[in-house]
Amino acid sequence: MPELPDSSPPDIPDSLPLNSVGLVEPQVFEFEEPLELSCGRSLNAYRLVVETYGELNDKKSNAILICHALSGDHHAAGYHSANDTKVGWWDEYIGPGKPIDTTLFYVVSLNNLGGCHGSTGPCSINPDTDKPWGKDFPPLRIRDWVHSQARLADRLGIDQWAAVIGGSLGGMNAMRWSIEYPERVRHCAVIASATKLTAQNIAFNEIARRAIRSDAQFFDGDFLEQDAIPRDGLALARMIGHVTYLSDELMGERFGRELRSGSFQQGLEAPVEFQVESYLHHQGKRFAESFDANTYLLMTKILDYFDLAREYNNDPVEAFGHAQCKFLVVSFSSDWRFSPARSREIVDALIAANRDVVYTEVESTMGHDAFLLPNERYESVFRTYMLKVAQEC
Amino acid sequence: MPELPDSSPPDIPDSLPLNSVGLVEPQVFEFEEPLELSCGRSLNAYRLVVETYGELNDKKSNAILICHALSGDHHAAGYHSANDTKVGWWDEYIGPGKPIDTTLFYVVSLNNLGGCHGSTGPCSINPDTDKPWGKDFPPLRIRDWVHSQARLADRLGIDQWAAVIGGSLGGMNAMRWSIEYPERVRHCAVIASATKLTAQNIAFNEIARRAIRSDAQFFDGDFLEQDAIPRDGLALARMIGHVTYLSDELMGERFGRELRSGSFQQGLEAPVEFQVESYLHHQGKRFAESFDANTYLLMTKILDYFDLAREYNNDPVEAFGHAQCKFLVVSFSSDWRFSPARSREIVDALIAANRDVVYTEVESTMGHDAFLLPNERYESVFRTYMLKVAQEC
Repeated sequence: MPELPDSSPPDIPDSLPLNSVGLVEPQVFEFEEPLELSCGRSLNAYRLVVETYGELNDKKSNAILICHALSGDHHAAGYHSANDTKVGWWDEYIGPGKPIDTTLFYVVSLNNLGGCHGSTGPCSINPDTDKPWGKDFPPLRIRDWVHSQARLADRLGIDQWAAVIGGSLGGMNAMRWSIEYPERVRHCAVIASATKLTAQNIAFNEIARRAIRSDAQFFDGDFLEQDAIPRDGLALARMIGHVTYLSDELMGERFGRELRSGSFQQGLEAPVEFQVESYLHHQGKRFAESFDANTYLLMTKILDYFDLAREYNNDPVEAFGHAQCKFLVVSFSSDWRFSPARSREIVDALIAANRDVVYTEVESTMGHDAFLLPNERYESVFRTYMLKVAQEC
Repeated sequence: MPELPDSSPPDIPDSLPLNSVGLVEPQVFEFEEPLELSCGRSLNAYRLVVETYGELNDKKSNAILICHALSGDHHAAGYHSANDTKVGWWDEYIGPGKPIDTTLFYVVSLNNLGGCHGSTGPCSINPDTDKPWGKDFPPLRIRDWVHSQARLADRLGIDQWAAVIGGSLGGMNAMRWSIEYPERVRHCAVIASATKLTAQNIAFNEIARRAIRSDAQFFDGDFLEQDAIPRDGLALARMIGHVTYLSDELMGERFGRELRSGSFQQGLEAPVEFQVESYLHHQGKRFAESFDANTYLLMTKILDYFDLAREYNNDPVEAFGHAQCKFLVVSFSSDWRFSPARSREIVDALIAANRDVVYTEVESTMGHDAFLLPNERYESVFRTYMLKVAQEC
């Protein structure tokens, strides 16, 4: 299991931005009661690593659950140390005065089951073998996350979330909450997501998985026992993902056809010549150093398997008929991996199911990554919606 | 070098389609005069493998040059044997009564220099070492192809092509012809192409190259000497290409989310569950069996390097100012790798340069591959244009 940050009491330095949640410390929650999984197996015990921001009010009515995307974790906002140069992945949208305002809400963010940042997953020790689970970790579905998150809510004394919020894979997690525990969700925010992946999305995921499985350092999933890391495979997987999360337009703006050196090297042995190539290799390398390969396979399979309406006669209207909460749905114009058309399918089904829904398609050149990035219109819609959520707390 | 097909005289069986060019036989052309390359090196001698369809007229004015795309070769139309199950890659558009009508034109199709289907390339023997060139094969630019093709025209007695035609990378080849040898081209047909790749395109190419280079069987480009083939890398490269050549819509229509078995296997060890995954693996495997890895690196670099206007003050209008021929430009609505916007840039530059141009954006769900596939509107525009070309022969 990766090391958790040092738990000595933090000193908040003056230099952190005023609208930051500041220094935060992950907490560990151990669950000893067995969790039945949708694959038929069960976990006898599991651990979830969690961060919280803001205060739970007396009525315990202002709790927000943040669901992370493919490569996300519990660290959604703030800093882990005074000289931490990297903020949480959704710091742009969580903090005092931000759309998910921590002066109004008690925000709960966890590393999901199967993750590789402290929660029980393929890197954890399997108590039956005293070795890391590795490839033997049970396959999961999003509903398994929802059940594990419901137990976390119980532990925190939260009967009903003011809102469950997620982007991409996290949006699928949020939608599943609305159907599995209708009475425990007041609002559901589904950002840059879909009721199921397209064949093209599945194809990109499978290519990424094959890149990992093809790496000689993968050792059929047993790389941990071999003290190896399939770096090349992980880097390739990330590079594929990265290109598809950005828009063509954004890549053009950011890199164009700029060369690293003044002119072409023009050899088979001068592999990296364009800036965009260099950028991608850097992204791949960073990812390969911080992410577990079995977790990547597990998470992308969870994405591929998700099909909101499969158990509801393949009818999303029937599926959403079970929800009771109100919905915010957001998409981004240049997101071609979870396109606005996919969000409109969600909205159409919600309307047909007589659910209360606010939808906005935000103009952006940032592709799928837009849901993480600054954008005035997105912020404004998100903030307005969340103020309405706060008024009902 | 790959074996050329058996050269015994063919018997045309009755069963070949009437609008087929029938049985065809590749010819080998050896060029002994050194070819100066744009990288500063030169090839002392080279071989081109060529197929021709139809008859050269007495005025030698009806010759058409076909330029192939990334993974293409000289076998553009017809069959190599009576029980050949696979026709040439552009058989849909070349043949008696087809848009490139072999009763009207003398069609010349070659495997480009650097290729791996018989022409001199990384798999050929380097006379200086008596070993395959491999990664030491000189890097090429499209203008090197144009010069080698001009010598082929000389050999065939063709002073001026009635038309130079190509799709994708082949379209770049055709455009370069129009500028390098203005007086030798009457018409230029540029299909699903661009004056230069976008950053996104370069990114996909680099990911494909990295997949090949990461394969342990690549041996730093010396796999031939090791009697190895980087199959996994080649397969991955092809899978990435394939997904980007198809449209999201087409993949949805063709595969949807269909499972290979009735229900989910749900394990990390059950890697291929969706039909689309199985299809991609099949494509990857087939490609890995027939294509040379160094050639793939070389060809994708040629694509990345191509920038029509670089030597013309980065101004495509100035570049096309050197052309004298008439142009047909075709794009396909769902082609996101060489989008209609890229074709419109070509058309805008041609108009600004006072060139004669016909442009059509064809409605299609087939993505980039549309240029190879049946499509009534595309056929009709292409045929009409080619009849005009024939009238001028």
